[in-house]
Amino acid sequence: MNNQPIGLFDSGLGGLTVLSELKNLMPNENYIYFGDTARVPYGSKSKETIIEYSRQIIRFLISKNVKMIIIACGTASSLAFDTVKKEFDIPIINVITPTAKSIESSNIGVVATNATIKSNAWKKEILKNHPNVKITSKACPLFVPIVEEGLANTKIADSVIDLYLKDFSKSKIDSLILGCTHYPILAKKINKYFQGKVNLININKACAKEALSSLKKKSQLNTQSGKNYTYAYTTDSTLSFKKNAKLFCNCTFDKISQIKADKL
Amino acid sequence: MNNQPIGLFDSGLGGLTVLSELKNLMPNENYIYFGDTARVPYGSKSKETIIEYSRQIIRFLISKNVKMIIIACGTASSLAFDTVKKEFDIPIINVITPTAKSIESSNIGVVATNATIKSNAWKKEILKNHPNVKITSKACPLFVPIVEEGLANTKIADSVIDLYLKDFSKSKIDSLILGCTHYPILAKKINKYFQGKVNLININKACAKEALSSLKKKSQLNTQSGKNYTYAYTTDSTLSFKKNAKLFCNCTFDKISQIKADKL
Repeated sequence: MNNQPIGLFDSGLGGLTVLSELKNLMPNENYIYFGDTARVPYGSKSKETIIEYSRQIIRFLISKNVKMIIIACGTASSLAFDTVKKEFDIPIINVITPTAKSIESSNIGVVATNATIKSNAWKKEILKNHPNVKITSKACPLFVPIVEEGLANTKIADSVIDLYLKDFSKSKIDSLILGCTHYPILAKKINKYFQGKVNLININKACAKEALSSLKKKSQLNTQSGKNYTYAYTTDSTLSFKKNAKLFCNCTFDKISQIKADKL
Repeated sequence: MNNQPIGLFDSGLGGLTVLSELKNLMPNENYIYFGDTARVPYGSKSKETIIEYSRQIIRFLISKNVKMIIIACGTASSLAFDTVKKEFDIPIINVITPTAKSIESSNIGVVATNATIKSNAWKKEILKNHPNVKITSKACPLFVPIVEEGLANTKIADSVIDLYLKDFSKSKIDSLILGCTHYPILAKKINKYFQGKVNLININKACAKEALSSLKKKSQLNTQSGKNYTYAYTTDSTLSFKKNAKLFCNCTFDKISQIKADKL
């Protein structure tokens, strides 16, 4: 049981920032990363479609004998988690709940995709745990294409950050949740924008900690070291995955395979 | 035969700018528009995937008894047209060939998605017809999300236009092909950027003319007027299609239905 892989998925490549954190925290585990690159992005699509895509991918990962599923995608976490956790008999962790539980803030901002913000998942989850926190949310739909096009260090990124985040300066937030797995790539610029005065919360760290604690509790940690693998499956070409993955993490993959979305 | 509809498709909503031109030129025709909104965008995906998606949609449109297919998507035109025109026994028109034939320029620029520029389809098609034209190409991957997020009239659009188009100022182009069906929405700003000195070529106009001429030649124009319909099919939710379609055209739809991508 213990050397069964951990399965994680994202609409595309953003979830690789979660894989990075997981590997830092649990270097002895085996990993199967699924990137739905033929249907990316999820952030502009409907709840119904995102649930259906998530179901298909979870079924696929279960067929690969994973011991746990991590929804390494902010949009799927906010729109599909509640539904799929009831449908599947396997531990499923998302990137919202662990952060929402652990925040220490009285006036917090949340940035995420259109679909995530519209779902109110962050608000609901934070208020469940911390009913007196003031929350201000903002959808930042251009952040994902900016990161995916490798423009995170350009002036374009500065203009877009200013466009989306200027309202937060007025509302005097003390912390900002980067509510999408792509956003840590913009953290340096966002930090500079707020002159270091706002605490930026990387949702991947809390997610990885939750995964570690859940596996520990069930005595499911892999104790065999030295023979670990990381596999990736993508719905679009493996070549572009290989080329673009390094924007998000410096993981190496022992195998990258394509599985067509209509075969899921 | 004559009142059979014209079928057209795009990865999402951009192709509605083509529908607009078609309806201006041929108001007596019936139209079926297909927007693959559950898998949008195509511009960052592989050739193989774009061909497969195009095949599925063409099969679907043929099942709806269309008399002609228009690939109202720059990316599918550049990557899938050559393959699908051989596979299907129905007239297929794309948004590249008609414009490439008709240009009157000696130093031309082309802007389009990553996938289109990488395919060299514009270069090949222009040089086939006009071997001495100087061509400069540039992928502008943020233009589509900017248009889709309704940001075409913001300062963000200005910054991104400057980022992508400043090289064209140096190369002294006389004309610029807006090689993606989303881009006409940015035409006003691009025109201002070049201070009206560069002739902007809207690919939808030549495409609509080609469709008209092809139907005329085959005596397939619809002569019944007054009872025309325009239907739309989308792979994602019809609600968001309805909401966002008006960014691209002011057409009205007699019916909007969802057809899931895995049912194609």
